[in-house]
Amino acid sequence: MTKTAAIIGGGVIGGGWAARFLLNGWDVRVFDPDPEVARKIREVLDNARHALPSLSDRVMPAEGKLSFHATIAEAVRDAAYIQESVPERLDIKHTTFAAIHAAAHPEAVIGSSTSGFKPSELAQGAENARQIMVCHPFNPVYLLPLAEVVPSPETSDAALKRAFSVLKEIGMKPVKIRREMDAHVADRFLEAVWREALWLIKDDVATTEEIDDIIRYGFGLRWAQMGLFETYRIAGGEAGMAHFIEQFGPALKWPWTKLMDVPELDDALVRKIADQSDAQSGMYSIRELERIRDTNLVLILRGLKTQNWGAGAVLNNIDSAAKDAAGLPDLQGLVRTLHRTVPLDWLDYNGHMTESRYLHAFADATDRFMEIIGCDAEYIASGGSYFTAETHIRHLDEVHAGAEITVDTQVLKGVGKKMHLFHRMHHADGRLLATGEHFLLHVSLKTRQSCPPAPHIEANLLDISRNHAALPMPEGAGRAISKP
Amino acid sequence: MTKTAAIIGGGVIGGGWAARFLLNGWDVRVFDPDPEVARKIREVLDNARHALPSLSDRVMPAEGKLSFHATIAEAVRDAAYIQESVPERLDIKHTTFAAIHAAAHPEAVIGSSTSGFKPSELAQGAENARQIMVCHPFNPVYLLPLAEVVPSPETSDAALKRAFSVLKEIGMKPVKIRREMDAHVADRFLEAVWREALWLIKDDVATTEEIDDIIRYGFGLRWAQMGLFETYRIAGGEAGMAHFIEQFGPALKWPWTKLMDVPELDDALVRKIADQSDAQSGMYSIRELERIRDTNLVLILRGLKTQNWGAGAVLNNIDSAAKDAAGLPDLQGLVRTLHRTVPLDWLDYNGHMTESRYLHAFADATDRFMEIIGCDAEYIASGGSYFTAETHIRHLDEVHAGAEITVDTQVLKGVGKKMHLFHRMHHADGRLLATGEHFLLHVSLKTRQSCPPAPHIEANLLDISRNHAALPMPEGAGRAISKP
Repeated sequence: MTKTAAIIGGGVIGGGWAARFLLNGWDVRVFDPDPEVARKIREVLDNARHALPSLSDRVMPAEGKLSFHATIAEAVRDAAYIQESVPERLDIKHTTFAAIHAAAHPEAVIGSSTSGFKPSELAQGAENARQIMVCHPFNPVYLLPLAEVVPSPETSDAALKRAFSVLKEIGMKPVKIRREMDAHVADRFLEAVWREALWLIKDDVATTEEIDDIIRYGFGLRWAQMGLFETYRIAGGEAGMAHFIEQFGPALKWPWTKLMDVPELDDALVRKIADQSDAQSGMYSIRELERIRDTNLVLILRGLKTQNWGAGAVLNNIDSAAKDAAGLPDLQGLVRTLHRTVPLDWLDYNGHMTESRYLHAFADATDRFMEIIGCDAEYIASGGSYFTAETHIRHLDEVHAGAEITVDTQVLKGVGKKMHLFHRMHHADGRLLATGEHFLLHVSLKTRQSCPPAPHIEANLLDISRNHAALPMPEGAGRAISKP
Repeated sequence: MTKTAAIIGGGVIGGGWAARFLLNGWDVRVFDPDPEVARKIREVLDNARHALPSLSDRVMPAEGKLSFHATIAEAVRDAAYIQESVPERLDIKHTTFAAIHAAAHPEAVIGSSTSGFKPSELAQGAENARQIMVCHPFNPVYLLPLAEVVPSPETSDAALKRAFSVLKEIGMKPVKIRREMDAHVADRFLEAVWREALWLIKDDVATTEEIDDIIRYGFGLRWAQMGLFETYRIAGGEAGMAHFIEQFGPALKWPWTKLMDVPELDDALVRKIADQSDAQSGMYSIRELERIRDTNLVLILRGLKTQNWGAGAVLNNIDSAAKDAAGLPDLQGLVRTLHRTVPLDWLDYNGHMTESRYLHAFADATDRFMEIIGCDAEYIASGGSYFTAETHIRHLDEVHAGAEITVDTQVLKGVGKKMHLFHRMHHADGRLLATGEHFLLHVSLKTRQSCPPAPHIEANLLDISRNHAALPMPEGAGRAISKP
């Protein structure tokens, strides 16, 4: 089977799955009887193209091929992965699974986006129950990494293993739920919070906006990076987790939630919530809110990436795998030291890549070059590194978010503790965007003074600088900003 | 009354309040009979000093004076703001409030950190009930902006107004709760999630680690920036909020939560959670977890700051107020264009400010200089701006997180569309850290071609460049990296 995914049901969730697969290089075959399906999927795809590449510090695979099909049979044929996102009615789910079974490859993974049904309910009476499981994603599917994977007792280990492998390949964090249960895990939390929120609004304790503020200025900031238990572990302090739980045990007997009871969702309460929500967010269209949300998520995820923590560590693993797969660049000619897209957080108020991110890209290129000659993380941990002493940048052209850029590096000098590099940054369309000329010194991280590098680094650098001695001196090298 | 806060109860929460007040320039007087209180407060303060200044893109006020006192009377005397964070027992709270009342200024705000009690319970029988309210913070108090402010029916509007003013001044986002209720708002959500989580662990549906992953790879990322209702508004799409709620109404009748019932918190369940938590996070000490959490929060909050959204907008408002208060710098000599501390996210693997952040700081200095000569946000929106064409940086010395840095700017040339600037970056200890020489061109944002600026900008620039013509040419200006 090739990298082909079938998306059955093309709403917000199905569209999010389609976008995630496509932008990770999979071909996607969509079935949805809705005559508007192509428009709806393109809208989700536009959002995904805007935001998802910013999560990578490399270049994403070439986008896969998107096609629409008139029948389920046609959509699922040859698909290695099939995701069902049809309405939440068990009769519709059963009809859909029967049609999938009639045409699907017997080794294909069949995942369901259901929020509430147990996989054994979905697979009731199905001959191919071994292929069926819940793979429950979170909106926006193209950005949020979580997939709750819930096998039924009949799901095969082989199918589960293939599902994990595919979900990881498309950048997700699959978490296997140990026992099937109505609404799995996350939606049980969301439902509990939702029920409590309905009471708070009905009883005029807080408005929708006040509730949102209480979440996003408070515990929401904790939950984006640690969850419930790691947060409480810290709150418990050195006394430990058991102490913390016992201390908070009495609250279980207190009237701290109305969740023994749920409010009547009558017209008046629906209207109240809708009106409050208009007052809070009505100044933005849904499309604007989606873009704001997505850019915020990119920022948060890229921040976590710099700390190699949680959802950021998942993203780094993907970057590392791509780097390992690419291997060492050619060292005879110019050395390719950077190949990435410009992420959303590299822009400024002029709408283009801001000047300090040119140096960020050049510094990443220098880091990669150091790694190539042996000054890698292990060597740096042993106490040696290169520090930049002097930099000259010419900003020659503008570049915008989502653009693919490369940096190629020429060694102008590489002798003893001295390293003189010249970087050229190009847009994928061939335009020269900038040049960066950098003079570095090897230093001891103990004394913070310059000193010669380890012999293998000196030798590697010398090899490349001998190769590069044959190259012409770059235009702009050694140039200064002329004195007035 | 001066900027003096009294902290009654110096545990993790009281310590967090103390740190937030101190680092925002308030004197803090602590009362806690615990002989270890000074050590405990210093530990929280160490964490706060490490992280809180990174939320500012300016310099925080000089730290206030911390003192410890043997009696409540001594601690609260002359305090404009008094925060009670003693154990959650109503008899202890009442004794504490009586002692506060005996010595406090009649205009002082008296806030309680209680998680559960209603303010009318706290103020029962108190003569000064008008001063008393709940000001419920979230751990870590020095970083998380939310304070739930709950007045009792007897709390005066004047006291409430003063509380809001103080809480905003120390960087918080106070949210007034409309009706007092057990556990206010946030802890009702947390309690609902906690009760559900206890069931999931007891029933072996998921471990503590799996639950945390489900939160932080999924809806936790949404809740750090939007809350519940704005997130669901997006999910509802163009059909609107009322449609969304009605669609999800049926789930209220489904068995999606066990919250009609709470599990028995017996020794076996406590042990099970503690063991799972050890397996998940036991490789880190609590101190390490605190540092990881705080750096992550700084990253998330600084990310939201770049988008001027949610908790980030609160931080930007504080920076703007400080900037407005500082006014225009002197334009006769070198122009002070930057004064800030180095935030945590500006470091690299060598442990010092990474090279691209030198250019980031210089670019911010250039932006400030542009604003000073009239090229401000309004002018840029009208279609003109300056683009940097060429940059030369000398990295002369290292600088670390938390250091105070300044940039002073000399105009080397400012004629027509050309602007040639020379920035000097100093550490507060006097060391010259770097110089940045920049050649900029004024451009039309429509044609993306260079063109003369508006006459008032040209005139302002010319004035300053004439003043600066008398200054000596800076050492290092016009310098190039010498060709090998």
